[in-house]
Amino acid sequence: MSGEAAFIDLLRGMATHPAARGLMDDAAVVDVGGERLVLTSDTLVEGVHFLPDDPPGSIGWKLAAVNLSDLAAKGARPLACLMNYALSGDAAWDAAFLGGLDEALAAYAMPLVGGDTVAMPAGAPRSFTLTAIGVAQDHVPARGGSTAGDMLYVTGPVGDSGAGLARLQARGVEHDGSFGTARPLIDAYRRPRPRVAEGQALAAHVHAMMDISDGLLIDVSRMAAASGLAAVIEHVPLSDALMAAEGPSARMAAAMAGDDYELLFAAPAEAVLPVPAIAVGRLVEGSGLSLFLDGQAVSLPVRLGYEHRAGR
Amino acid sequence: MSGEAAFIDLLRGMATHPAARGLMDDAAVVDVGGERLVLTSDTLVEGVHFLPDDPPGSIGWKLAAVNLSDLAAKGARPLACLMNYALSGDAAWDAAFLGGLDEALAAYAMPLVGGDTVAMPAGAPRSFTLTAIGVAQDHVPARGGSTAGDMLYVTGPVGDSGAGLARLQARGVEHDGSFGTARPLIDAYRRPRPRVAEGQALAAHVHAMMDISDGLLIDVSRMAAASGLAAVIEHVPLSDALMAAEGPSARMAAAMAGDDYELLFAAPAEAVLPVPAIAVGRLVEGSGLSLFLDGQAVSLPVRLGYEHRAGR
Repeated sequence: MSGEAAFIDLLRGMATHPAARGLMDDAAVVDVGGERLVLTSDTLVEGVHFLPDDPPGSIGWKLAAVNLSDLAAKGARPLACLMNYALSGDAAWDAAFLGGLDEALAAYAMPLVGGDTVAMPAGAPRSFTLTAIGVAQDHVPARGGSTAGDMLYVTGPVGDSGAGLARLQARGVEHDGSFGTARPLIDAYRRPRPRVAEGQALAAHVHAMMDISDGLLIDVSRMAAASGLAAVIEHVPLSDALMAAEGPSARMAAAMAGDDYELLFAAPAEAVLPVPAIAVGRLVEGSGLSLFLDGQAVSLPVRLGYEHRAGR
Repeated sequence: MSGEAAFIDLLRGMATHPAARGLMDDAAVVDVGGERLVLTSDTLVEGVHFLPDDPPGSIGWKLAAVNLSDLAAKGARPLACLMNYALSGDAAWDAAFLGGLDEALAAYAMPLVGGDTVAMPAGAPRSFTLTAIGVAQDHVPARGGSTAGDMLYVTGPVGDSGAGLARLQARGVEHDGSFGTARPLIDAYRRPRPRVAEGQALAAHVHAMMDISDGLLIDVSRMAAASGLAAVIEHVPLSDALMAAEGPSARMAAAMAGDDYELLFAAPAEAVLPVPAIAVGRLVEGSGLSLFLDGQAVSLPVRLGYEHRAGR
């Protein structure tokens, strides 16, 4: 067991309150005053969750987006957030970060109400935490709760963000900002659009829901495991932008790429869905994951997706 | 203006929702479902908020305590918390940290329900964030709201924690743990006891309340400024332990020392207080701070107390 896995096991031993959902879900759910609050918190670390030369405004945007996506996965409406900021020592950088954060908070109507600002010792990597609080509906979908026969859907194509990141890593930064056909992919990486409205609309219709933060394959396998079922993926939907930039050979990479922030959900085949969604497979009796592309069984890679995001 | 002050000014421009209280209070106050939620978040950074050789269990304890103290200052009952943890690369250290955190959470009945665990790049300073959510009563005391003539009280003596820190810094760590007469001071620094029960009892009786995290002088001056009043401090209460270890000459240092986590509050002189408290002065018309010791006016130092804690 890795040190991280061992640590999270210790945390699970402490977090025994039902609101913690065993630290197995995207967020905690706390009932108070007749409302169901959804609580989530994510930390972004330079060199781990973002590139040192990513534009600061996009990092601020992303800090809000990753937390909003967790609220979306639980069908919650954003209520408020707190940010913990480690000053970078570069006032222009910090101001640009806040600009991007502010744009995301305005776009999703989540007011910033508090937090903490600290000065880090010189040379420390940048790191930022945002904690978001949302108000959920009566039914707060979990990762588990599906039944055999449920269809698996996503709210949009996968892989754009991962392909954008790969372009940035392969070419270095292009300071003129002209990424050509890769532009929409870079934008998907830098300014992901969490599916907050879709999550609220879907919550009452799904058996299980989560966001795809670590990749379609690994997140589908987690959803199946949480319900004690097996998953079959029969379709990996790609965007027009990704098809144009890389062609259909991008499918396998897209299925393993993180940071998409589309919603993945399980619903009965006969369910009438309130928002557009793409069927990608189904849940069946058993355990494990199978992948079919163009009707052919495909062997799975050893690592199904990103695993840098621990805990939540 | 320092970079930190300029940054917090930018934050204030973003945090315009009334729940943010202008980022001038110890916590945010959000109304939901007929309840008043108090939200607070503090980050502790190695070398800034704790010593690199502090016992890990005491750092875990303190992370909970600083947030609980903010809830106490608003008269809130702890509801839940989330922790964002940067793995140290030392499993035994991490486990000991969790042990201390768990003790504090159990002592104050605040369940851990979520958060995030991240691996930091090698050599990064340790840093930890905890976000606490509490449920307040109808009246949530602010820093301001006092009237001229109010008495100023503290829930206990000040300076123990600061004297403990000074001992640790002056002598280095004594690995046998025998600190002699300084033991209670070291304990006050390492395991502060936030006044959560007292805060709840006091909330309905006070005009203003905050915790003394940065020192009596600076926090009294902040409370006075928040009400547009002047403050007169006429008494700096010291513990028996501090008197035994350092004698009455410790008063000035005690008045400027941080990390005490006693509550400071303003109440009418005729108020009958529900918990023991020590009168330290009063609020009067005007602005600024005056200090009297043994009936003699004392000049104030240029820096009134710690200012490492920004934002909240």
